[in-house]
Amino acid sequence: MAVAEIIITPLGTASPSLSKYVAKVHKVLERYKVKYQLTPMSTIIEADTDTIFKIAKEMHEVLFEEGIQRVVTNLRIDERRDKELTMEGKVKAVMEKLKGE
Amino acid sequence: MAVAEIIITPLGTASPSLSKYVAKVHKVLERYKVKYQLTPMSTIIEADTDTIFKIAKEMHEVLFEEGIQRVVTNLRIDERRDKELTMEGKVKAVMEKLKGE
Amino acid sequence: MAVAEIIITPLGTASPSLSKYVAKVHKVLERYKVKYQLTPMSTIIEADTDTIFKIAKEMHEVLFEEGIQRVVTNLRIDERRDKELTMEGKVKAVMEKLKGE
Amino acid sequence: MAVAEIIITPLGTASPSLSKYVAKVHKVLERYKVKYQLTPMSTIIEADTDTIFKIAKEMHEVLFEEGIQRVVTNLRIDERRDKELTMEGKVKAVMEKLKGE
Repeated sequence: MAVAEIIITPLGTASPSLSKYVAKVHKVLERYKVKYQLTPMSTIIEADTDTIFKIAKEMHEVLFEEGIQRVVTNLRIDERRDKELTMEGKVKAVMEKLKGE
Repeated sequence: MAVAEIIITPLGTASPSLSKYVAKVHKVLERYKVKYQLTPMSTIIEADTDTIFKIAKEMHEVLFEEGIQRVVTNLRIDERRDKELTMEGKVKAVMEKLKGE
Repeated sequence: MAVAEIIITPLGTASPSLSKYVAKVHKVLERYKVKYQLTPMSTIIEADTDTIFKIAKEMHEVLFEEGIQRVVTNLRIDERRDKELTMEGKVKAVMEKLKGE
Repeated sequence: MAVAEIIITPLGTASPSLSKYVAKVHKVLERYKVKYQLTPMSTIIEADTDTIFKIAKEMHEVLFEEGIQRVVTNLRIDERRDKELTMEGKVKAVMEKLKGE
């Protein structure tokens, strides 16, 4: 399992409001059985690397179908093989260190 | 107001476990009166751009004081001047679009 | 065609020197017929989106085979469909605007 | 010394062509005595951390003065304190490893 962050940015949209595009992109996730979290700056997902790349590719494609001519996609994957990496576990580990001090 | 995402990565740490470093960095935020959110992939803050850069600089510095020799800092700032941009408002706008369909 | 930037970061490496890992990752490109450029901060490639994702996935995998336990991969894809986007063209367009002033 | 990568993205520009904005942002560098490199995906600079943050802040500001209402700025700083980090040195170290094999 890996944890990844995806940001899809449409360029040349005339309006600086992008939430309708973010929503379109976000709907891709409904077709996958993965844990995800919408944050103010990105979408975070928890899945194996193959699935993450598959989802990122699909999310990158969505806005072209909406007539957008240029899309910038940022994908950041954090994968660990010596122990399980999960969205919940990552936050919990930091919170415990903060409380322990 | 702007919304920003900060990721501080220490390199050459011997162990791949980084939560204790993330916690050290995160404590910088306690000294500032800003809204923030710890996500599985980053720290998100809401502040004016000057404050964001000040906090990022301080967070970037923290791990060198812990003996780390190399630090990579990722800062992503999203600023809008035609209307107020907030962490809560950004997520809410997307959720409303998702419900509206 | 799209232009993409890839950064593969091994965590928990003991030494903060990463060039030998960057070299291992970079060698993946020799197996592909794509244009690429090594910059001080990343590897930039020019290819269709399918190939970019395929290369990024392979680059992300390489360091685990070297015994690294945690890898963070940053991929940034810039794709445009109303006109051809190339590495050379992108830089040239900016240089022309700079000279034109 | 540190090496940093900066990407300034204007949102809501009507046209997906951004080179004129990139050129405006790039001109900020002429006022500083720092080494820099324009790549197909970013601007890379070599400077101390204070100067990097100062430049990034100024670059982030430029497009608002051009009437843009929303700007996303990506800054990635790579700083090392056990030895000098330079743009040239980083690329050279990787090239040597590639030749050595």
